[in-house]
Amino acid sequence: MPVATWAQCAPKLIDVAMGRSAADTVIRNGKWVNVYSGEIIPATDIAIVAGRIAFVGPNAAHAIGDTTDVIDANGRYMVPGLCDGHMHVESGMVTVTEFARAVIPHGTTSMFIDPHEIANVLGLEGVRLMHDEAASLPIHVQVQVPSCVPSAPGLENAGAEFTVEDVVEALTWSNTCGLGEMMNFPGVAMNDPKMLGEIAATQNAGKTVGGHFASPELGLMFHGYVAGGPADDHEGTRKEDAIARVRQGMRSMLRLGSAWFDVAAQIKAVTEDGLDPRNFILCTDDSHSGTLVQDGHMNRVVRHAIAQGLKPITAIQMATLNTAQNFNMEREIGSIAPGRRADIFLTSDLVELPVEWVMAAGDVLAENGALIADIEKASYPDFAKNTVKLGKQLSAADFDIHAPDGHKEVRVRTLGVIENQAPTKALESVLAVKDGLVQMDARNDVCQIALVERHRGTGAVINGYVSGFGYDKPCAVASTVAHDSHHMITIGTSKSDMALASNHLGKIGGGITVFLQGRELATVELSIAGLMSEERAEIVAEKAAKMVLAMAECGCKLNNAYMQHSLLALVVIPEIRISDLGIIDVTKFEKVDLFV
Amino acid sequence: MPVATWAQCAPKLIDVAMGRSAADTVIRNGKWVNVYSGEIIPATDIAIVAGRIAFVGPNAAHAIGDTTDVIDANGRYMVPGLCDGHMHVESGMVTVTEFARAVIPHGTTSMFIDPHEIANVLGLEGVRLMHDEAASLPIHVQVQVPSCVPSAPGLENAGAEFTVEDVVEALTWSNTCGLGEMMNFPGVAMNDPKMLGEIAATQNAGKTVGGHFASPELGLMFHGYVAGGPADDHEGTRKEDAIARVRQGMRSMLRLGSAWFDVAAQIKAVTEDGLDPRNFILCTDDSHSGTLVQDGHMNRVVRHAIAQGLKPITAIQMATLNTAQNFNMEREIGSIAPGRRADIFLTSDLVELPVEWVMAAGDVLAENGALIADIEKASYPDFAKNTVKLGKQLSAADFDIHAPDGHKEVRVRTLGVIENQAPTKALESVLAVKDGLVQMDARNDVCQIALVERHRGTGAVINGYVSGFGYDKPCAVASTVAHDSHHMITIGTSKSDMALASNHLGKIGGGITVFLQGRELATVELSIAGLMSEERAEIVAEKAAKMVLAMAECGCKLNNAYMQHSLLALVVIPEIRISDLGIIDVTKFEKVDLFV
Repeated sequence: MPVATWAQCAPKLIDVAMGRSAADTVIRNGKWVNVYSGEIIPATDIAIVAGRIAFVGPNAAHAIGDTTDVIDANGRYMVPGLCDGHMHVESGMVTVTEFARAVIPHGTTSMFIDPHEIANVLGLEGVRLMHDEAASLPIHVQVQVPSCVPSAPGLENAGAEFTVEDVVEALTWSNTCGLGEMMNFPGVAMNDPKMLGEIAATQNAGKTVGGHFASPELGLMFHGYVAGGPADDHEGTRKEDAIARVRQGMRSMLRLGSAWFDVAAQIKAVTEDGLDPRNFILCTDDSHSGTLVQDGHMNRVVRHAIAQGLKPITAIQMATLNTAQNFNMEREIGSIAPGRRADIFLTSDLVELPVEWVMAAGDVLAENGALIADIEKASYPDFAKNTVKLGKQLSAADFDIHAPDGHKEVRVRTLGVIENQAPTKALESVLAVKDGLVQMDARNDVCQIALVERHRGTGAVINGYVSGFGYDKPCAVASTVAHDSHHMITIGTSKSDMALASNHLGKIGGGITVFLQGRELATVELSIAGLMSEERAEIVAEKAAKMVLAMAECGCKLNNAYMQHSLLALVVIPEIRISDLGIIDVTKFEKVDLFV
Repeated sequence: MPVATWAQCAPKLIDVAMGRSAADTVIRNGKWVNVYSGEIIPATDIAIVAGRIAFVGPNAAHAIGDTTDVIDANGRYMVPGLCDGHMHVESGMVTVTEFARAVIPHGTTSMFIDPHEIANVLGLEGVRLMHDEAASLPIHVQVQVPSCVPSAPGLENAGAEFTVEDVVEALTWSNTCGLGEMMNFPGVAMNDPKMLGEIAATQNAGKTVGGHFASPELGLMFHGYVAGGPADDHEGTRKEDAIARVRQGMRSMLRLGSAWFDVAAQIKAVTEDGLDPRNFILCTDDSHSGTLVQDGHMNRVVRHAIAQGLKPITAIQMATLNTAQNFNMEREIGSIAPGRRADIFLTSDLVELPVEWVMAAGDVLAENGALIADIEKASYPDFAKNTVKLGKQLSAADFDIHAPDGHKEVRVRTLGVIENQAPTKALESVLAVKDGLVQMDARNDVCQIALVERHRGTGAVINGYVSGFGYDKPCAVASTVAHDSHHMITIGTSKSDMALASNHLGKIGGGITVFLQGRELATVELSIAGLMSEERAEIVAEKAAKMVLAMAECGCKLNNAYMQHSLLALVVIPEIRISDLGIIDVTKFEKVDLFV
C-alpha cells in the first residue's frame, strides 16, 4: 500500500513529536534495538502517525491523545521489521500476496524480489503484474528488474526476451529498486553491450545493480565483473568469497534459503577475521512454502546468524539497516527512527527471536505468529493463467526416440543427476533398440527426459535421457517449473505416463504432477504462469509434500529430487542440460547430438 | 573537472581489470587502507584508467602497458582521498579554487561546501558562480544549496532572499548534493512552510538535507526537528549531542575547524560508549586560510581523531566512506575500490598521517606537501566584484549619535563581546552627551559599532555601542564579512577613522581594514562579494595575520577579535546584535531602541 512520503507527512510527524497533535499509535516501554548506534536502549516509547515514526524517546506521553492506540511493549525488544535483501517469490510457488501473508508473522516487512521466473514466461507484462501486486501490499516490497531473460541466449528460447529498453522502462516504475542479479558474469567480463547497457541504465537511474558471480574463481574474471558495476552479490559460499566481495566495495549477501546454507561459512569473515560487518547482508534467495510455514523467513536467517556467533544487534543490522543502505533506502526502512516507516516487531528474546507482534507502516499485521490483518487475495488476469500452450494433445509416440538406421544398440548422452548439487554429470549410456526405437533402461536408472515446448504451442518435444532419480515403476513426473526458460520438463519410465502427465499440466495451466501407471498420484497446481499457485502457502506446502511422497512412491530415493528435476533445463550450469533447442553441453556452451 | 561516469567508463575499466588493455597508472606495492572491510591489506596494486579505479589486488602486472605510469608505493599506505563533509569555503576568505589548491596537498579530494555567505550577498547567481567553479576543479566539490537566506527574515535584510523555487532550481544543477545546514531549527519544529518546502524539495530530489540544531536542549524541539527530515548535524558539542543524533538516525558530524573543537568530547560516544562508528563523520565547517596553510585540513581532523583514541582505520572511515554514504555517493568517492574515482593519497604513517602524494580522479596533484598540478586561477565576473555599494562617501557625521533632546547623559544598550564565545551579553552603558551628541567612552571600553548598508547603496548607517574589544587609540576596524547578512560592520573609537575605513572598503570592493589615526594599518582585500580574496591562501593568511596584529596595535587584547567582529550582526545568536534594521534583542527576536 503506498505510504505517504516523509516529505508529505513531515508536518504531521513534527506535530506529534512536539506534542501538538496525537499519535495514531504509541508503543510504550520497550527496549529500543537501535541499529544506528548499535545499542539496546531500555524504557523507550515510540509514537507513530500516518504510518511513520514521529518520535522515539524515553517518554511519548505528550503524543498520546484520546484516539491514540497505546500498546505496552512490557519491556520487550522493539526491533526494526526484517528485510530480505534478495529473493524470488516464485520459489515459494505462491503469489506475492500469499508470500507476504506467510512471512509477515515472522517479522518480515521488506522484501527485495527479483521476478526472474515470471519474466521468462510472461516477459515485462508478468513482471508488471508482480510489481503492481507488490505495491498493493501492506509491507514494503520492491522489485529488482530481471537482467537476464532468457538466461542463455542462443542456447534456449524462453517465453520472453528482455531488451535494454525493457529494463529502462521497468526502472521507471514506482516500486523498482534496481537490476536483478546480473548472472551473465562472463558477459560482463567480456563487455557484452547488452549487459553493460542494463547496468548503465540502472546506475543512471540511481538504483542498485544486483550481482551474481557464481564461480569460486576469484581471478581476473571476478575483477572484471566487479569493475562492471554490480553492487552486491549473494552467490558466495566460502569465507574467502565474502571477504573478496567486501574488499572490492561490494556488499556480501549471505543467504540461508530452503536449500542454500551459505551463512555459516561466510560469516566467519566477521566472527573470525574481524571484517567490518556493515557491508554484510542476510537474505534467503529461494524459500519453499514449506520452509516459510514450518521454519520461518528472515527471522530464521537472523537466528541462524546469531547461532554462528554474531552479536544479535549485528545480525539484526544485517537484515535491516545494511539492507536498506544497499538500496539507498535507509531513510525509508530498516531502522526505528523518526521519519521511517513504522515497521517494527516485538520479541521477548533477542537470540531465539520469537516474533510476537508485527507492525508495518503503522498497522498491526500479526500477533503471536498469526496474521491478523485482512489482506485481499491477489487476482491475476487470464493471460497470466493460460501459459501452458502445448499446441496439441501429446501421445506416448511424442516421446519415441528413433535410433539411427540399422543400430541394435546406441550410445546416448545422459544427464547425470548428482544428489544435493546443482551441476550435472555428462554420462553416456548404452541402450537397446527395438523396432527402430531406443529403449529406456529403468533397471540401470536410465529413464527419459523430455523438454516440452510450452510457451508458443509449437508441439515440439525434445527427448533425451537422465539418470539418478531411481524411478523403478512405470511412471512420469512433469513440471512447468523448469529454470530458467520454464518450459515443461517431463521425466518418466513410461511414455504413456509422460504423455498423461504432460497433458494434465497443459489442461490445468501448469504445475507439478506425478503419474504412476496411468493414475494421478499428486499434483501441485501452479496456475499463474505455470509457476505459482493461487492458494495459501500452507496449502501449497502440503501439496508439495504429497508430491515428494508420490515421487518416492515411484521409486525415487534422491534427496530434493524435485529441485533436481526443475533445474535440468538450466543451461548455464555444467555439465549437460536439455533445452528447447536440444541437448546442451554446458562445458562448451553448445548443442550436442543425443547420440554419441 | 567532470569525470566520465562509471557507466560511461565501464568497458574501459573491465578491459583493464581483465588485462585486455593498459591502465593509465598502476600504483604498486602499497598497503591498501580498505574502508569497506576495515582492514589494512599489504602488498596491493591499484590499476587506474579514465580517472577511475579499474582493479585493486595483489598484482596488477597484467594492467601495465607501454604507456602506463607505474608508481611504486614502496610499502606505504594507500588511503582514500579525504572528504570534508560540511564546510564553507568563504571562511578561508579565498575562492574555491584557491581553497582547493591549499587543501589538495593535505590529501583532501572531496568537499561538500555550503556557499551560504555568498548567497547572502549575491543570491542564486553567487551560488551558481561557486558551483561552476567547484565543478571545474580537479577534485570533487559538491554544493549544498543554502537553506536560510536571509538567516533571520524580519530581523534583517541581506543582499538576497532565497525562495523554495530557488532551492528547487539549484538542486537540479549538476554538482549540488543537497540542502545546506537547515539552521532555522525553531522554524522546522514550528512547521514553517518555507523550511519544510525546502526540505521536501531536497528529499524529492533524492538528495541530502544538512542539519544544524544549534542548541544544547535535547527535548521536544530536538525531536520535532529530527522528524522534519535533516539527515546529519554538525552542531553538537558534547558526547550526549552526538549520541542523541545517531540514535535518532542522523549522522553526527564532528567538526574541527579553526575555531571549532568539537571532536574530542563527542568522539567519546565511540571510544567510551562503544557506539557503532559508521554514523560519525568528520568535517571542518570553517577553516581560516592560516589553518590551511599552517596546520592542514581534513588530515588535521583525522590525526586529531586518532589522537583521541580512535583506530586509524575508523577515523579514516569517518572522513571517507561514512561521508560518501551520507551523500549517497559511496560508489563514486570515499574508498579505494573498482569503479570509484581514483582519489588516493600515500602516507608512510597512519597515525601522524604525513600526506606524501595525492591523486584525484587519476591525476597526480601534489607531492610532499606541495601542489604540482597546474590549476587555473578562478575568474569572477564584475558583478561579483562590485558588491560594496555605500551609495555615498561616508563622513564622520554619519556616525554621529544624537541624544534625545535635553539629556546630559544617556543610558544606551551595548553589545557586550564575550571572549571565545559566539553569544554576546546585553550590556547597558551610561554615556555623556556633548553638543547634543552621545560620546563614546573608550577608557571604559565602550566604542561605537555601525552597520553600514552595503547591498543596495541606501547610504543607511545604523549606529550603536559595543564593549569588549579594548580599543584605546583613535582607530577603526571595518569588515564586509558580517555574518550572515554581510553588510559592513565598522567598529571604532574615532568617527573619522570609521568613515575612512568604511570608505576604503567601499573603494576596494570589500574586505577587512584597520585604520589608526587616519592611517591604514592593514587591509585584507576581499574583492569577491566582499567575502573572498582573489589571491592565494598563503597571501590571504599573511594579510589576515597582519590585520590581527594591527587590531592589537589599536589596543585590542581579545583572542580571535576579528571573529567576534564579524559575528556582531548574526541576529540568530543571543543576546544582542546589530542589523540594518537597528539594534536587535536576540532573546526576544525583536528590534529594540538604542536608548534604554
